[in-house]
Amino acid sequence: MLNTADDIRSPLKTAHFMKRILVIGAGRSASSLIKYLLENAPQFDWWVTVGDMDLTLAQSKVMGFERGRAVMFNGLDENARLPYLQEADLVISMLPASFHAPIVKACIQMKKSVITPSYLSDEIKAMHLEAVQQGVLVLNELGVDPGIDHMSAMEIIDRLKESGAEITGFESFTGGLVAPESDNNPWNYKFTWNPRNVVLAGQGGAVKFIQEGTYKYIPYHKVFRRTEIITIPEYGRFEGYANRDSLKYRSIYGLEAIRTLYRGTLRRVGFCKAWDLFVQLGVTDDSYVMENTETMTHRQFFNSFLAYSPKDSVETKLKYYLNIHQDDGDLMEKLEYLGVFDNTPIGIKNATPAQILQRILEKKWSLEPNDKDMTVMFHKFNYQLGGDQRELHAHMVVMGEDQTYTSMAKTVGLPLGIAAKHMLQGTFSATGVQLPIQKEIYQPILSELAHHGISFQERLFT
Amino acid sequence: MLNTADDIRSPLKTAHFMKRILVIGAGRSASSLIKYLLENAPQFDWWVTVGDMDLTLAQSKVMGFERGRAVMFNGLDENARLPYLQEADLVISMLPASFHAPIVKACIQMKKSVITPSYLSDEIKAMHLEAVQQGVLVLNELGVDPGIDHMSAMEIIDRLKESGAEITGFESFTGGLVAPESDNNPWNYKFTWNPRNVVLAGQGGAVKFIQEGTYKYIPYHKVFRRTEIITIPEYGRFEGYANRDSLKYRSIYGLEAIRTLYRGTLRRVGFCKAWDLFVQLGVTDDSYVMENTETMTHRQFFNSFLAYSPKDSVETKLKYYLNIHQDDGDLMEKLEYLGVFDNTPIGIKNATPAQILQRILEKKWSLEPNDKDMTVMFHKFNYQLGGDQRELHAHMVVMGEDQTYTSMAKTVGLPLGIAAKHMLQGTFSATGVQLPIQKEIYQPILSELAHHGISFQERLFT
Repeated sequence: MLNTADDIRSPLKTAHFMKRILVIGAGRSASSLIKYLLENAPQFDWWVTVGDMDLTLAQSKVMGFERGRAVMFNGLDENARLPYLQEADLVISMLPASFHAPIVKACIQMKKSVITPSYLSDEIKAMHLEAVQQGVLVLNELGVDPGIDHMSAMEIIDRLKESGAEITGFESFTGGLVAPESDNNPWNYKFTWNPRNVVLAGQGGAVKFIQEGTYKYIPYHKVFRRTEIITIPEYGRFEGYANRDSLKYRSIYGLEAIRTLYRGTLRRVGFCKAWDLFVQLGVTDDSYVMENTETMTHRQFFNSFLAYSPKDSVETKLKYYLNIHQDDGDLMEKLEYLGVFDNTPIGIKNATPAQILQRILEKKWSLEPNDKDMTVMFHKFNYQLGGDQRELHAHMVVMGEDQTYTSMAKTVGLPLGIAAKHMLQGTFSATGVQLPIQKEIYQPILSELAHHGISFQERLFT
Repeated sequence: MLNTADDIRSPLKTAHFMKRILVIGAGRSASSLIKYLLENAPQFDWWVTVGDMDLTLAQSKVMGFERGRAVMFNGLDENARLPYLQEADLVISMLPASFHAPIVKACIQMKKSVITPSYLSDEIKAMHLEAVQQGVLVLNELGVDPGIDHMSAMEIIDRLKESGAEITGFESFTGGLVAPESDNNPWNYKFTWNPRNVVLAGQGGAVKFIQEGTYKYIPYHKVFRRTEIITIPEYGRFEGYANRDSLKYRSIYGLEAIRTLYRGTLRRVGFCKAWDLFVQLGVTDDSYVMENTETMTHRQFFNSFLAYSPKDSVETKLKYYLNIHQDDGDLMEKLEYLGVFDNTPIGIKNATPAQILQRILEKKWSLEPNDKDMTVMFHKFNYQLGGDQRELHAHMVVMGEDQTYTSMAKTVGLPLGIAAKHMLQGTFSATGVQLPIQKEIYQPILSELAHHGISFQERLFT
């Protein structure tokens, strides 16, 4: 639907008045965002520029839409990106998290609001005052996790608080998984997102959370054995392992007095115990380069982490070392499925154990052309209301459409696109560096997400 | 014994000709070094200055000897140390390893040779050419481990090579332990050295070694379960866990083609399996500060690493989590001995798990006033000679005399003192940044160490 003002404008005049959105980065996570912006561009009089170092990739996302163009530039190159920033009314950075800061900085200086889906870095956090002074909004953590998790949690937290409830516990889990119809390997898992993040999950410091008022700590080598079982109606059983960073959400969510706060990642049941075999072996280590990886087979790689014992097979040494019993058949099946014991060359030079493991996993865990992914989120709130102890569960399950418009791309991209719309319309009064935890921000976004089939179902246990 | 030239000199003239040695740092590890220097000072016409920030400590080490003085200065303060460096003929830095570099730099610029007992840092290594140009010798790794390990190994390696042997394997273990007469706790261990290093042992990266031509890697959380048993005549059984850095010794020792190279640390049998309980819990982690440590008891500290389960005791949760069975009684005995389950306050603010664990261990593992320590070193060489496969074992056991002249102080200090003597006499032709791996350096040092009861016994297995 074009508005009438547009209809009578000349192309030049249109170009003058319409709002210009710049999306930096056209990777997998940007597909649904770009589609949303381009689909809505005629109605809201937007012009969408998609910039990427890979022009073909950018073009493939813009193709078939009138109000967009693909351009080639390196978002990290200050001079290359400058003209595109200058003409933009709003910037959305879809680059990897560590690359946002200089772009955000430049946007603030040019008085342009900017959105990122990534965890707010200390560097960007420090730009808050400057952003307020410039009157711009820098909205971060606006994908799915972080993003929809914040918004859906805050919607419930605000609602419970308004009803007079005292929230005593909050546990929250998110998982990027393979859809049931494409779930055909013994791990019940495929890479639907950055494989490197999956291999390194849980590393970089101990897990910290609070349970019934007691601080709890889990070292990396125990994370995948301290799981919780979560059952989601219609979708069955999942298991959740703890994320590293639960404690900071007390202040973000305004739950300073809460007695239990735990955030985790969802997998299908059995994944974590098998993944822990890799952790125990040390093959997820990314801190050193191994010797002779260019001539190494899968089998030799795993043997590097087992004791020398020339009379025993790699299989036997591994089972003995990791205490895998004959009746733990599913563990060996999972390893065999991945070709752990095969004499297949790895085919990668000067690599860390984590890089080699990723290579081996990618041979089996990559999505097939017709595979679909699934994003699952689960919140559990415990609260007291009128003297009663209550438990509220909320869950969201989103299925991918295909390999481009995956559930991950949709759940990351749509909140960004909807936020962009509201920022261009001036709906949000907030300025400065923000997360989507204020009602004026999360409410319209959640409301529109529901129209796209992204919504939560709640169950109350009293 | 004074030499005749000295006897007829006036004090002033003596002061002019005598050699001046500066020892920076008068801590526990410097005791035997300072005693050696002061005992030998009259014979060799030395004047020994011992500088420390703690004047009383420096004085206590110099007291009773004529040819020494204690002075107070901060070795890290460039201006404070300058006059002492200027008047010195030779400098021995006994500061912690990370503090040597600026002192070594200053010494090289002033054309003064310098000795340290510590692992050669990249920073000091980079000063080699400058040291050669200035004609000075910077001798590092001249304590016990590193130090006596290098010298004793190179003496055997050079001897085997000269005999035409081909060395195929070398394993080497060192341990700072409590002497059998003072060994009265279930861990068979007390702190005889820096407790922090003991708590952090094995951290900072995976263990790497080579065994029968295959590179092997052990992650931190498995190091204390991949031990070897070592039997030393008269002293019984020990166990060795792997050090992180075995591979670099191939080039240092000139053993590039060796098929097995492994370096480790010795403990009494049973220590490592029990220590591994701490590793598994995560209580050796030094990377984050825990909450509320100032009000925490031993029991609460350990409970922080166990799952929430209000109906179970900390003891039961720990046994279940770490798979400790009823008949693994010695493990629980070791934990109980340390007061792991006691309601004793820790008494330390804003501390990391490793700092808290160290505090708890120090309450039980500190040497009593009459306790003596013991330093044990063991080398195992495999080689081929004239078609025969042979195995050579060499071991050294040194007992401490008391809490000042510990075996650690003797085995660290005497090599330094003897090296100092030879450097002042001009025995060594080498200049530049060196390790004690050349025959002209290790031979006279090992020879004199034997007079002090520090020597190796060899056993040949054919």
